[in-house]
Amino acid sequence: MANVRIAGTGMTAFGEHAGRTGRDLFAEAGIDALEDAQLDPDDIEELYYGNFMGELAEHQGHQAPLFAEAVGIDAPATRFEAACASGGTAVRAAVQAVRNGEADAVLVGGTERMTDMGTAGATDGLSIAADDLYEIKAGMTFPGAYALMASAYLDAYDADADDLAHIAVKNHDNAVVNEKAHFQSAITVEDAVEAPRVASPLGLYDACPISDGAAAVVLTSESFAADHDLDAPVSVTGTGQGTDNLALQDRESLYRTPAAETAAETAYAEADITAADVDCAEVHDCFTIAEVLATESLGFFEPGEGLAAAKAGETTRDGSIPVNLSGGLKAKGHPVGATGVAQIAELTKLLSGTHARSDALDDPSVGIAHNAGGTVATATVHVLERTTEVDA
Amino acid sequence: MANVRIAGTGMTAFGEHAGRTGRDLFAEAGIDALEDAQLDPDDIEELYYGNFMGELAEHQGHQAPLFAEAVGIDAPATRFEAACASGGTAVRAAVQAVRNGEADAVLVGGTERMTDMGTAGATDGLSIAADDLYEIKAGMTFPGAYALMASAYLDAYDADADDLAHIAVKNHDNAVVNEKAHFQSAITVEDAVEAPRVASPLGLYDACPISDGAAAVVLTSESFAADHDLDAPVSVTGTGQGTDNLALQDRESLYRTPAAETAAETAYAEADITAADVDCAEVHDCFTIAEVLATESLGFFEPGEGLAAAKAGETTRDGSIPVNLSGGLKAKGHPVGATGVAQIAELTKLLSGTHARSDALDDPSVGIAHNAGGTVATATVHVLERTTEVDA
Repeated sequence: MANVRIAGTGMTAFGEHAGRTGRDLFAEAGIDALEDAQLDPDDIEELYYGNFMGELAEHQGHQAPLFAEAVGIDAPATRFEAACASGGTAVRAAVQAVRNGEADAVLVGGTERMTDMGTAGATDGLSIAADDLYEIKAGMTFPGAYALMASAYLDAYDADADDLAHIAVKNHDNAVVNEKAHFQSAITVEDAVEAPRVASPLGLYDACPISDGAAAVVLTSESFAADHDLDAPVSVTGTGQGTDNLALQDRESLYRTPAAETAAETAYAEADITAADVDCAEVHDCFTIAEVLATESLGFFEPGEGLAAAKAGETTRDGSIPVNLSGGLKAKGHPVGATGVAQIAELTKLLSGTHARSDALDDPSVGIAHNAGGTVATATVHVLERTTEVDA
Repeated sequence: MANVRIAGTGMTAFGEHAGRTGRDLFAEAGIDALEDAQLDPDDIEELYYGNFMGELAEHQGHQAPLFAEAVGIDAPATRFEAACASGGTAVRAAVQAVRNGEADAVLVGGTERMTDMGTAGATDGLSIAADDLYEIKAGMTFPGAYALMASAYLDAYDADADDLAHIAVKNHDNAVVNEKAHFQSAITVEDAVEAPRVASPLGLYDACPISDGAAAVVLTSESFAADHDLDAPVSVTGTGQGTDNLALQDRESLYRTPAAETAAETAYAEADITAADVDCAEVHDCFTIAEVLATESLGFFEPGEGLAAAKAGETTRDGSIPVNLSGGLKAKGHPVGATGVAQIAELTKLLSGTHARSDALDDPSVGIAHNAGGTVATATVHVLERTTEVDA
């Protein structure tokens, strides 16, 4: 497969942006990415755009051409929606377009405006990622769905719910130096364990926040990067997507995520890597249990060993495979449509040595992005590799 | 470019489907298409899916994996949203995936449930295709927007608003034999001219109805079609997409649609055809004026001559370029996400000689699909060609 270069990244702060519109947030991230790439809007041949629920949040569909205009791009603009994997599916389409020669330079981005909806509104909005007829109308919410998955995992492996706290503590700790993070504050295991329960066994610190934000990345072909003398040491070398039944009741297991396993298998095969080659990963930790399932589906740990590995510190900055050095969804925040794109931006900086947490990695060459929609009914996995030397 | 074969088509009736869910409608269309192709769900490697406003109509996002499951497909499933061009953007992605070897057999489809929303609810839902901040909050509706475009056209070319009636009469007349059409009844010019105004100068018969429905098409590579001995005489040989400012106020002209001109230019170039090669077209006539603008943007008529050509009968069954032999959005109906896919299904039958209106065409070889979102802020154009002999 032809390599696809990452020529620039941009991101708003993640958090509460009261009074700013989605187009405003996306314009900031998109222009930021273009400036980082030292390219003009006219260089961009396609916009791939992820958004989950602009219809509900801002009464605004058809955002792709509207937000293209906000960045100054006059090119085909296409919106992808796959619940919380909306950004990941947009990235996959962008990677395919560039490697197949459909376009030489594309912008891929995503946005979500959520805080203006309030907690109840956002929770209702997020629920459209599940099966409305058989789950939501029966009273399920997303914290409830992940609580079911957590309970099943803990039961199957005879594990302790309190151990999930280690993931929240790690991700908050990583985010302390991330200027774009929603929460830049550390927490303790006690904080997490003693916090109010949201949906037992999950407590307040097991859940990611409701955030506003936008992210964007410029992808180009190798030849475009060379012709324009771009500083683009990192490539996307593999992309995979998997699907599962939307409703939990239709799954064989509540504590495995085969959509992510399929996505990882495809992406690893394209990049010709194995899990052992991976130096760092940004995974979809909408809840702490989701990070456990992600690290198992990506092959970092055997099924049933992810939580113990997290407790043992294997995924911390000093561990064998640092996970969510950005702070993850848990602490960095989760403006849904932006998340899958922001993961690519974080990994690009980590592999380039320009990230606030770069000191946790020793000459890294491979990073993985894992983005999930709903209860992982959609998953995308991307392999990023440093393909040229980085000035130390 | 490698040809992309159309191996099967499926469609529900378009109209009111009270009490049926979107997944139910899509399952009918998807299974219909697979049976037409004589393929199994397991043969399908990707689902590309168009839907505009399931969030508002059914409180259901993340429809792609849910609806894949309804058809029995276990493969990556991706949803596209581009307002009324949602289906067209899904088709473009599907065509690109097959011609680039990302997948050998894909299902592309679309669904919309609208009638349960009621007229006011559907009108409000449709309005999210426009710029909420600068158009909708100022009181605009889609009939109002197209009325502005119609007024500008009629003023620029000193034309008569009553002439728009000829387009409604033609499309209703074409739909009389279309068993899937929302309206299978003829109307007269008098009916249209004397009907109540919806937004002056547009009257009731200038507007398409609010419909429920689903459509699906199976696309395969040439080699897959050959290996599986598929009956697939029609190929997609060109695909184009264009973008314009979302808000009318930001356009240079209210009576030109450059997004469609760009899409047509791209698609024609890929297929190596000109407008003169086209035998029939399915165009996006959400309002009668939209068909006029479409036929001009596709190069069938010079700017300012489309309405006069329609009045002169050039786009009727006996005319030089029959347009909307299916009945178009006007009479066949417009379940938004399904429309761009249904156009491909109709053209496939027209070029195969199996359509209820095939007698209008003498050995046709080239058909065009034109799908538009909003006030043509997004447009897709596809070129279909009969690439193998059809048994007469």
